[in-house]
Amino acid sequence: MEKFLEDAAAALGPRGLTRDADLIAPWLTDWRGRFTGKALALASPGSTAEVAELVKLCARHNVPIVPQGGNSGMSGGATPDGSGTALLLSLRRMTAVRAFDPAARQITCEAGLILENLHNIAARENLRFPLTLGGKGSATVGGLISTNAGGTQVLRHGSMGALVAGIEAVLADGSVWSALVPLKKDNRGFDLKQLLIGSEGTLGIVTAATLKLVPALADRVVIWAGLPSLQVARALLLHCEDTVGNALEGFEVIPADSLASVCAYNQTARIPVEGEHAWHALIEVVADAAGTESLRERAEEMIAAAFEKGLLEDAAFSTNETQAEAFWHLRETVPLAERAKGPAVQHDISVPVDRMPDFVDAAIARMEAAHPGTQAIAFGHLGDGNVHFHVIAPPGSERAAWEAGEGKAISAEVHDMVTEWGGSISAEHGIGQLKLGELERLGDPVHLALMRRIKAALDPHNLLNPGKLVALAPEGPSA
Amino acid sequence: MEKFLEDAAAALGPRGLTRDADLIAPWLTDWRGRFTGKALALASPGSTAEVAELVKLCARHNVPIVPQGGNSGMSGGATPDGSGTALLLSLRRMTAVRAFDPAARQITCEAGLILENLHNIAARENLRFPLTLGGKGSATVGGLISTNAGGTQVLRHGSMGALVAGIEAVLADGSVWSALVPLKKDNRGFDLKQLLIGSEGTLGIVTAATLKLVPALADRVVIWAGLPSLQVARALLLHCEDTVGNALEGFEVIPADSLASVCAYNQTARIPVEGEHAWHALIEVVADAAGTESLRERAEEMIAAAFEKGLLEDAAFSTNETQAEAFWHLRETVPLAERAKGPAVQHDISVPVDRMPDFVDAAIARMEAAHPGTQAIAFGHLGDGNVHFHVIAPPGSERAAWEAGEGKAISAEVHDMVTEWGGSISAEHGIGQLKLGELERLGDPVHLALMRRIKAALDPHNLLNPGKLVALAPEGPSA
Repeated sequence: MEKFLEDAAAALGPRGLTRDADLIAPWLTDWRGRFTGKALALASPGSTAEVAELVKLCARHNVPIVPQGGNSGMSGGATPDGSGTALLLSLRRMTAVRAFDPAARQITCEAGLILENLHNIAARENLRFPLTLGGKGSATVGGLISTNAGGTQVLRHGSMGALVAGIEAVLADGSVWSALVPLKKDNRGFDLKQLLIGSEGTLGIVTAATLKLVPALADRVVIWAGLPSLQVARALLLHCEDTVGNALEGFEVIPADSLASVCAYNQTARIPVEGEHAWHALIEVVADAAGTESLRERAEEMIAAAFEKGLLEDAAFSTNETQAEAFWHLRETVPLAERAKGPAVQHDISVPVDRMPDFVDAAIARMEAAHPGTQAIAFGHLGDGNVHFHVIAPPGSERAAWEAGEGKAISAEVHDMVTEWGGSISAEHGIGQLKLGELERLGDPVHLALMRRIKAALDPHNLLNPGKLVALAPEGPSA
Repeated sequence: MEKFLEDAAAALGPRGLTRDADLIAPWLTDWRGRFTGKALALASPGSTAEVAELVKLCARHNVPIVPQGGNSGMSGGATPDGSGTALLLSLRRMTAVRAFDPAARQITCEAGLILENLHNIAARENLRFPLTLGGKGSATVGGLISTNAGGTQVLRHGSMGALVAGIEAVLADGSVWSALVPLKKDNRGFDLKQLLIGSEGTLGIVTAATLKLVPALADRVVIWAGLPSLQVARALLLHCEDTVGNALEGFEVIPADSLASVCAYNQTARIPVEGEHAWHALIEVVADAAGTESLRERAEEMIAAAFEKGLLEDAAFSTNETQAEAFWHLRETVPLAERAKGPAVQHDISVPVDRMPDFVDAAIARMEAAHPGTQAIAFGHLGDGNVHFHVIAPPGSERAAWEAGEGKAISAEVHDMVTEWGGSISAEHGIGQLKLGELERLGDPVHLALMRRIKAALDPHNLLNPGKLVALAPEGPSA
């Protein structure tokens, strides 16, 4: 090991490798505080060539590698295990923009570029990168690609995978696979780019990417609606899609209870509509090109027609950007407000969009009945068939004990139910180490076997982010 | 072999297997007449279970399988080799629509469904499947998926890969991988769906798919423009994207010579604009939702502004659907008119969109200078950075001799040049057997090695469409 560390230090230079426990410590626990590991050292290469050199050294010395971006993942995918044998590999020093072609609406940047910085760079050319999420101040391009991140704009623009035009990655043997081709069409074989996207660093280490940009928003209208049920919300969503088509960029739902929690958490929060409503929807309608002076008119017509059809009880329109931001802030505060309620288990699940309302009703009823004293709530991306389903512990529960006991049992029941309904136990947060056991328990055996074969083919010695996403076959790695 | 054929006949029933040479013959030559092979028999299973059973038999008896849809591929990917050892597996009997959810805009159908039938089924619910191409009357869903087909709507809707929500496939060992999940978001591991899309039957046999639909067009305006150069066409494309954004659904270019060929080929064809123009562009602007009564006005403003900027010399607008169809018919006749000119070599290439105009000029100049008497022309999907680049033999050339001699040399030179310019030797037609040698010659070794590893992992005995898309490593299959 000393020989490996010496060689790595020589390859990466003084800024590139540290064994200082104080410097490493902040990166050994995931941001949600669920997992803590140990690492041999923290490597911070400054270039793809350095990553390649380092991975070759790791291959030679059989050192496992845990790649890490902003350490803001939701499933512990960037946290090493407790053995201390793995090298923690930070991509955070690699932040260069290698090319930016505003006319082609493409940018090629390195894996460590932080999402918010990418947003700002695009904005300077009147463009935008249409993916955003709560952790935008720390989440990196490489991490977003490795987890195929979602967010609140998936309805219109898709998840990360839909926004990546090309990738550069270092493979398990240290070779560099470079496919930063800004080609719109390319049928030269298997789509290895999509294979790497969402593979959580288990097949290769993403070092750079060519990303698609879209025009900056010319205008937007955010609508806050009060609704009697999630079934009506679904009908309203269809109505909006039929009425304004592609101009619909966001459709989020929040139950009355969660909104009350937001108001309790943030005393200055104000609900845009009056009266009692079982559910609330946040609807964003946008225009990203000229000639769209009628956006507000279209949004108003859409909502007026919905009102006539009985698809909402009340609605408020943002009249300026400050108000639009305020509406979104209510939505974005939900996770924090919910977390403040005490111990809870959270589930990032999807089911077919048309089944989502009935699923949520059934899941809430089943969990609260089976686990007296708990409160179940769902909120999120109805337009994508993806909700965040939380079950909050009975008042007074001790966090660690409850989460490890009843909480864990509840999660298994939620995942069973999602599977019965034809859904996914991970809509956008990935598997990491958090859900690996559940994926093994509930996943399609044919799918799991395929994943193992591909993992063994691309990483035969199981050195790339071991213990995440893909469990090895019972007989161990094929090497 | 007799034992295999007996077992296969028993498994598939009387309609499912034939050894009748007359019945098999039409399917042994690709539709362009470039490749002819032999087959042990023609299997036509009627269900996924029958495909799975058949593949298990093939695995047991070591029989290679060549899957085939409509036999309208462009690269010989569905034609067996000359050995006669392979089983030709037609998916054409599997045409069922398993589920159709108009509200969710999704349809689940079997691999043999013909594209034009899919269009018609979608249209009945005021929806459409936004991919079309010349072979729509024979091309099947399975073939389109296996080749990641493109067409004229990629600019807005993407290639086939962007339109597939889920897949069912039979793997090399006969297991059925079923991922027909109509989920918009699902991060449960590697995206094996995208790996199978475009894999030309070398990793699995696609038996069914869940496809995304979009609203039917409420209106469209097709514009025919005369232009001085391809550089100006590119500037016009950017102008259109900036002006109408997502309403731009097609942007095709045709050189004056090709348009003259169309008029010679079809005496009733009429060019929509007067005067001489070096290039012509077909621009389609669409509206697929209500509230778009201003579509024509927007299109007219877009073209008026382009005219003021000097981005076109003349333009004509379709005033009704008949005229819109007539404009498109001119474009669609180009390949036929070009083919009628005599022997030629054709290339389906892409380069980064911004480099395409200069590439076309340079490639035409270089090929015509190096090969006196030839004529080089380019036409197609400028919006995607994808043109079809033909080099027509000197008058009087004998087809077979010229294509095998000078034609082959020209193709190599075109592919060299595309590679130098950072482009792809196959933008949308795939590799098949036609371009396998060229992919091996010009492809990135790291990419080719990755493909071989994945092929060996998923099809260790090389039974799935051998000799297509992915060449085995010099040391042969890992099995």
